[in-house]
Amino acid sequence: MALVLYWGSGSPFAWRVMLALEHKRLAYESQLLHFDKQEHQSPQMLKLNPRGRLPVLRDGDYVVFESVAVLYYLERKYPDPPMFGVTAEEAGVIMRVICEFQAYAEPSVARIVSAVFADQVGENIDELTDAMHVVAREARTIEARLSREQWIVGASYSATDMVIFPWIQLLRRALDRSAAAELGARFLPMEKNYPALARWIRRIEALPGYQRTYPPHWRET
Amino acid sequence: MALVLYWGSGSPFAWRVMLALEHKRLAYESQLLHFDKQEHQSPQMLKLNPRGRLPVLRDGDYVVFESVAVLYYLERKYPDPPMFGVTAEEAGVIMRVICEFQAYAEPSVARIVSAVFADQVGENIDELTDAMHVVAREARTIEARLSREQWIVGASYSATDMVIFPWIQLLRRALDRSAAAELGARFLPMEKNYPALARWIRRIEALPGYQRTYPPHWRET
Repeated sequence: MALVLYWGSGSPFAWRVMLALEHKRLAYESQLLHFDKQEHQSPQMLKLNPRGRLPVLRDGDYVVFESVAVLYYLERKYPDPPMFGVTAEEAGVIMRVICEFQAYAEPSVARIVSAVFADQVGENIDELTDAMHVVAREARTIEARLSREQWIVGASYSATDMVIFPWIQLLRRALDRSAAAELGARFLPMEKNYPALARWIRRIEALPGYQRTYPPHWRET
Repeated sequence: MALVLYWGSGSPFAWRVMLALEHKRLAYESQLLHFDKQEHQSPQMLKLNPRGRLPVLRDGDYVVFESVAVLYYLERKYPDPPMFGVTAEEAGVIMRVICEFQAYAEPSVARIVSAVFADQVGENIDELTDAMHVVAREARTIEARLSREQWIVGASYSATDMVIFPWIQLLRRALDRSAAAELGARFLPMEKNYPALARWIRRIEALPGYQRTYPPHWRET
């Protein structure tokens, strides 16, 4: 098989690429690596990506990594169906909202998620509360977009949805922990606080192939 | 004129877009805003970009911001000459190195530059020294690429060069200050420490239209 995806369970970056591969209806060989066994840092993986990060996509002899770059490569190589828009104008907005998410939301979401999973909420509560305010503000902007349209940018499922969705799922999972109850009080339940976002999550969960992208270790715990 | 660029002098994000506009040989109306007069936060600008950030590009009725998204829009709208590669494989590497720069180098470069210009080197010297180590490591990777090829990705000037170049110029300018002498000791002069990078800077400085992209307030000081 030409396409091989090296990935880790629960990595939002890997999840993006799996959503893209399903969207493009591309068959691929799945190489699930285990972070806890340092498999992503093996000599073989460091040859593919010297930073030892996942996901890495191989397409025959070609190797690409960094999730947004992988999405962009897939779009250029397998343009149909598109995920970066049909017109230049759509493409600009899709990439703009991706850049905005990465610059203004992702650092705070990542901080919260890693603190919760490392069981370090209590000692960082002030900083995490600030991060949660940032996340809430960015989520309100996305909520407003989704109150007007089915997808974050316009009428079609796009790379923007694929980039943002895994982080939202990861955030929900983190805030659902009892140690994060206070932190998540104004975010969860999303059905109440962010109803359009909640509907968008269900819309993505209903996409063909979604189940194949779901982090396997999340089914167990 | 269809294209209008709102920008600030010395903003590396705006500089990227100006390099792209010159590369595409696109005429544009230049709207230079003054950060110190808060012109980027005027009601008129906030209508174009609610975050009040620059650059903002208007193309007729269409508005796009976030520098990488502006570059991507320009590529889709005015594909010739390309800056995101000719093949999907080139495109993937170009975007990958952009993503790597943004994730692993830019935060440290930005930290150093802002500390130097805010005259806060002394009190943050340990943190800034760490940041400088990160920058030096990333610069060595780029140096290695530029020892093999004329441009950061392959044989053609690309969006990767446009994204990285303004930050390198800004970093050189910051490290040139006497307060940053110790910090910059192993970076400057670039001709000695990073000779391929230094040649690449001169190559970009020799491109047609480069002078129009040069920060005007840098000529005065």
